[in-house]
Amino acid sequence: MANPRVSIIMGSDSDLEIMSEAAKSLSEFGISHEIQVLSAHRSPELLTQFCKNLKKRGVQIVIAGAGGAAHLAGVVAAHTTLPVIGVPVNSSALNGLDALLSTVQMPSGIPVATVAIGKAGAANAGILAAQILGLHSKPLQEKLLRYKNKLTRSVIEKNNKLKKGK
Amino acid sequence: MANPRVSIIMGSDSDLEIMSEAAKSLSEFGISHEIQVLSAHRSPELLTQFCKNLKKRGVQIVIAGAGGAAHLAGVVAAHTTLPVIGVPVNSSALNGLDALLSTVQMPSGIPVATVAIGKAGAANAGILAAQILGLHSKPLQEKLLRYKNKLTRSVIEKNNKLKKGK
Amino acid sequence: MANPRVSIIMGSDSDLEIMSEAAKSLSEFGISHEIQVLSAHRSPELLTQFCKNLKKRGVQIVIAGAGGAAHLAGVVAAHTTLPVIGVPVNSSALNGLDALLSTVQMPSGIPVATVAIGKAGAANAGILAAQILGLHSKPLQEKLLRYKNKLTRSVIEKNNKLKKGK
Amino acid sequence: MANPRVSIIMGSDSDLEIMSEAAKSLSEFGISHEIQVLSAHRSPELLTQFCKNLKKRGVQIVIAGAGGAAHLAGVVAAHTTLPVIGVPVNSSALNGLDALLSTVQMPSGIPVATVAIGKAGAANAGILAAQILGLHSKPLQEKLLRYKNKLTRSVIEKNNKLKKGK
Amino acid sequence: MANPRVSIIMGSDSDLEIMSEAAKSLSEFGISHEIQVLSAHRSPELLTQFCKNLKKRGVQIVIAGAGGAAHLAGVVAAHTTLPVIGVPVNSSALNGLDALLSTVQMPSGIPVATVAIGKAGAANAGILAAQILGLHSKPLQEKLLRYKNKLTRSVIEKNNKLKKGK
Amino acid sequence: MANPRVSIIMGSDSDLEIMSEAAKSLSEFGISHEIQVLSAHRSPELLTQFCKNLKKRGVQIVIAGAGGAAHLAGVVAAHTTLPVIGVPVNSSALNGLDALLSTVQMPSGIPVATVAIGKAGAANAGILAAQILGLHSKPLQEKLLRYKNKLTRSVIEKNNKLKKGK
Amino acid sequence: MANPRVSIIMGSDSDLEIMSEAAKSLSEFGISHEIQVLSAHRSPELLTQFCKNLKKRGVQIVIAGAGGAAHLAGVVAAHTTLPVIGVPVNSSALNGLDALLSTVQMPSGIPVATVAIGKAGAANAGILAAQILGLHSKPLQEKLLRYKNKLTRSVIEKNNKLKKGK
Amino acid sequence: MANPRVSIIMGSDSDLEIMSEAAKSLSEFGISHEIQVLSAHRSPELLTQFCKNLKKRGVQIVIAGAGGAAHLAGVVAAHTTLPVIGVPVNSSALNGLDALLSTVQMPSGIPVATVAIGKAGAANAGILAAQILGLHSKPLQEKLLRYKNKLTRSVIEKNNKLKKGK
Repeated sequence: MANPRVSIIMGSDSDLEIMSEAAKSLSEFGISHEIQVLSAHRSPELLTQFCKNLKKRGVQIVIAGAGGAAHLAGVVAAHTTLPVIGVPVNSSALNGLDALLSTVQMPSGIPVATVAIGKAGAANAGILAAQILGLHSKPLQEKLLRYKNKLTRSVIEKNNKLKKGK
Repeated sequence: MANPRVSIIMGSDSDLEIMSEAAKSLSEFGISHEIQVLSAHRSPELLTQFCKNLKKRGVQIVIAGAGGAAHLAGVVAAHTTLPVIGVPVNSSALNGLDALLSTVQMPSGIPVATVAIGKAGAANAGILAAQILGLHSKPLQEKLLRYKNKLTRSVIEKNNKLKKGK
Repeated sequence: MANPRVSIIMGSDSDLEIMSEAAKSLSEFGISHEIQVLSAHRSPELLTQFCKNLKKRGVQIVIAGAGGAAHLAGVVAAHTTLPVIGVPVNSSALNGLDALLSTVQMPSGIPVATVAIGKAGAANAGILAAQILGLHSKPLQEKLLRYKNKLTRSVIEKNNKLKKGK
Repeated sequence: MANPRVSIIMGSDSDLEIMSEAAKSLSEFGISHEIQVLSAHRSPELLTQFCKNLKKRGVQIVIAGAGGAAHLAGVVAAHTTLPVIGVPVNSSALNGLDALLSTVQMPSGIPVATVAIGKAGAANAGILAAQILGLHSKPLQEKLLRYKNKLTRSVIEKNNKLKKGK
Repeated sequence: MANPRVSIIMGSDSDLEIMSEAAKSLSEFGISHEIQVLSAHRSPELLTQFCKNLKKRGVQIVIAGAGGAAHLAGVVAAHTTLPVIGVPVNSSALNGLDALLSTVQMPSGIPVATVAIGKAGAANAGILAAQILGLHSKPLQEKLLRYKNKLTRSVIEKNNKLKKGK
Repeated sequence: MANPRVSIIMGSDSDLEIMSEAAKSLSEFGISHEIQVLSAHRSPELLTQFCKNLKKRGVQIVIAGAGGAAHLAGVVAAHTTLPVIGVPVNSSALNGLDALLSTVQMPSGIPVATVAIGKAGAANAGILAAQILGLHSKPLQEKLLRYKNKLTRSVIEKNNKLKKGK
Repeated sequence: MANPRVSIIMGSDSDLEIMSEAAKSLSEFGISHEIQVLSAHRSPELLTQFCKNLKKRGVQIVIAGAGGAAHLAGVVAAHTTLPVIGVPVNSSALNGLDALLSTVQMPSGIPVATVAIGKAGAANAGILAAQILGLHSKPLQEKLLRYKNKLTRSVIEKNNKLKKGK
Repeated sequence: MANPRVSIIMGSDSDLEIMSEAAKSLSEFGISHEIQVLSAHRSPELLTQFCKNLKKRGVQIVIAGAGGAAHLAGVVAAHTTLPVIGVPVNSSALNGLDALLSTVQMPSGIPVATVAIGKAGAANAGILAAQILGLHSKPLQEKLLRYKNKLTRSVIEKNNKLKKGK
């Protein structure tokens, strides 16, 4: 996509299944985005380059997903003043507890907006980006309200099904 | 403060010492804000009312800090499409692990932008709010860049002290 | 069921397999009940409405099951003075530890009667409801005693099988 | 107290400071109660005797607090069909995580209504008992509603103080 | 088996696969034993009866395996002065961490000799019983030495295989 | 003490305060014992020598306490067929959870009889040794019964004090 | 292999699948190595013998992998002044958390260079050995640089694939 | 110190008390070293610069200590092929568990040699560096052997004191 407003990066291509949930959320809200592999450990210079070009390229928010000693979101946050959203990926023996703590426990001065471990977190990363961009976009705010209503309606519909199923 | 752009709420007045770090960060960036106690459990209707009035009052971001079964940020996120930043407070026997998991592990559809446990997290919540608001404010972006430079300079100064101390 | 005395709610329809264990327990004790999806996050207003109508509808106990940042039981407890039983559901990467802590670590003033993670907990939620209602019902108390005896007999029978199996 | 409706027991007299919070809650709601040390491990026969006499003595609810391998609530629940409320006490090196898991993870058939670790949990145990007994007592229900309102008012008052303090 | 010297009990028949490892170890050392289901929660009186008869029946050691809020070993230890070996069973959502803490964190005065979670622990429970009984049995001590040598030889054999496999 | 039947060892002299609880228990039961520092890491050859001499010296049980990566009990168990009791010491940042897992999670073939973290565990290690030695000593068994009765009486006395205090 | 510079040992042959990742890394860097089973618990004397012969045989680094109460690396470190790399193996119910803490939490004086749990850790153990040996080998340092470049290129290639796949 | 062979870096000057243990170890072995603050988050470009100059400056090993989301060691490891030793610092609410997992759980390809949390770990980091450098230095190897003997002698001395103290 040309001129992505949100850039999704992930530490490994094995995180793609989880991180594509973030892309789905952004697509649902019509927000331009890109997705790529960028490792804080395997490609540190590519990552620094990526961070330095973010503003020039018009990127406004970075969503970074990684597992294990998940440094990706924190390293991006160290290089930019854009909001960085971190998604802990449950790819290690410790079920993502390591990725959660490595992502959220940032020191004073360099926040990472951390969401839940795994797919729910990735989907929410996209929605959080929409909420942030929605602060200056009426149409986006309306989409967010419609999305919230859809969530409520889906609860009602599930209950209707549940009653019929009985 | 009149017309606060960021509203800081906390589940208990005993969280004030921690959550005032968020206020300090916002003051440093010149962002109007308010701070108050609002409990998801002790004052649910006040909280709902608070959520419904957010947009009318011009609030753009909510920072919510709570300990234990920390539902505050999640409940606000359920009621609004504004970005909600959650600060886990380490006020229980489990040192904030309970508050962290209760804040971050939100289901798909309702994100909470979670930061670190305790004071570092609260300070970062204010900075994250500044980053979000900075997306549409050149002056704020410049302040954020200056802040980032200040962080780097403080590292240099500490090393100078360290060398002299030897 | 008309006039349910116990209302079972769950944060997501994917919790149904677990939470239907609560319904089974209540059926075994002949206690009228209902079961529905109600999310603290996806349908907060439906949930508030549900809480406000509980007493009018004659509901005496609420059983609430949820996973992850499980706020459901706590939010209901915030709105009602009826006893609320919380069932942590193991639907996240952290195997229900998050749901347990989010459900049980309630602040002073708003208790949630928390039971075990998953199916055993859901079954026990129904039995706990029977114990509570049994305080003012002789027949229910007798059923509870018979159930307790049945548990003991099943231990004896299992040992008989074990001996024959040898 | 003669004819206690709620019996508070604790595994050790060192738990008294925490467990007296349960007594305070019950006193606040005017519910007759007793408090004593009874260990599942140091006095198993006294405990069995205690359980067998509960109904004769008119006790309706047991609140049991213990630390470490906290078996007290579970053992009482094994002997009676009355509701048993378990309070995990944070007296060991593991800060009460052991007591929480030992209390809440009961097998199917024998529920323990578990509340939070430590003082908040003990206070809530008393309130939960009041909620249970309130199901058949109008005056108690009114007291519970007044208590809930008092919680909300205390939030308002704390905010007033907070504003004046500024 | 007539006149068992070691009695293996388990909280549920679903623990049989794990606990039969203890029986296998005892058989390997030629120690008479029995195995049965006895629940601290489902059959408390049977369990008390079992404990009271232990010495009369000539039982010298009890091996108790249970999962979740694993009270079985602790309750037996409360009733007898015989050595009690506890095996935490990983049958709950928390993978046996709950069973481990519920078994090992006993208060001062009532020890439970706790072994590892699951099959390795159950096998070791049988060996530990052999070591205890071996203190007064030369033949048993010789068997234990032969077993230890067998362990070492199996390491040597595995290395021989490994080398050939290359 | 000449001819100790129980040998208490600890990984560091900083563990002395905790491990002397084991010595106190053994003294209470009149069991000869010795106590010394022996590290699996700082003095591996002394430790091997110690293990090889155990039987010659008439030692029957080893109690080994250590913190952090607590290998002491396991290494002794590897060298001897005598029963080895492990006491996890809470001397590290992780409050003894590391010592507990390092002590209890032994592989199949080499049991360590693990007791609770810290002082309660050390005291229980001494009592467990008494229970083991009591299998072949009537007087010791009587002392153990008296000790158990004393535990029960102390519960009764604490309740008497509690009543008077009111 | 004759004259191995790195010796890989593992506590059990069931760790072979994981530990062969270390061998693969070493092969990739052309470093001579051997691999064998050696248990701190099942073959303590073989292990001591192994440690004493290390220097004579020209071994420079030991890589030790084990699960559960993983004492292997620590015991080797106690016997030698060569660098010892520890690989926690996730073979127990606790997913390797026990092996991690048992390996890394060594007391002051006896370091174990611990890497990640499981396969990634085993592969990294081999690379770490190459880095250490590379300090005195230009060719090895060049291989390490090439390996690092390969890691970066693989990131680029994965992104090319990702773009084509779209 | 001119021409340091080991460079100690730490994420914050508040880590100095802990990290100076590493310097003490290196001084004890006569290894030239330097110590400074360098944050992966507050000074990312200084850190990259530091990494790029390591080899030119003759540094052979980096020791990196950090707390919370401890990315420091991992980021250095991403930039260099020198061995990197990571020290988890217990400066957050989670007592260093977060720092441990953030440091040790590195992905395949980029090892960090992780030592224990806190002071013991920092001291061991220095010793591990000595062991690595000792591979090509006879005098250093002799110092390491003397150090090991000193550890054993200190155990003997402590026991002598212990005996006299009795």
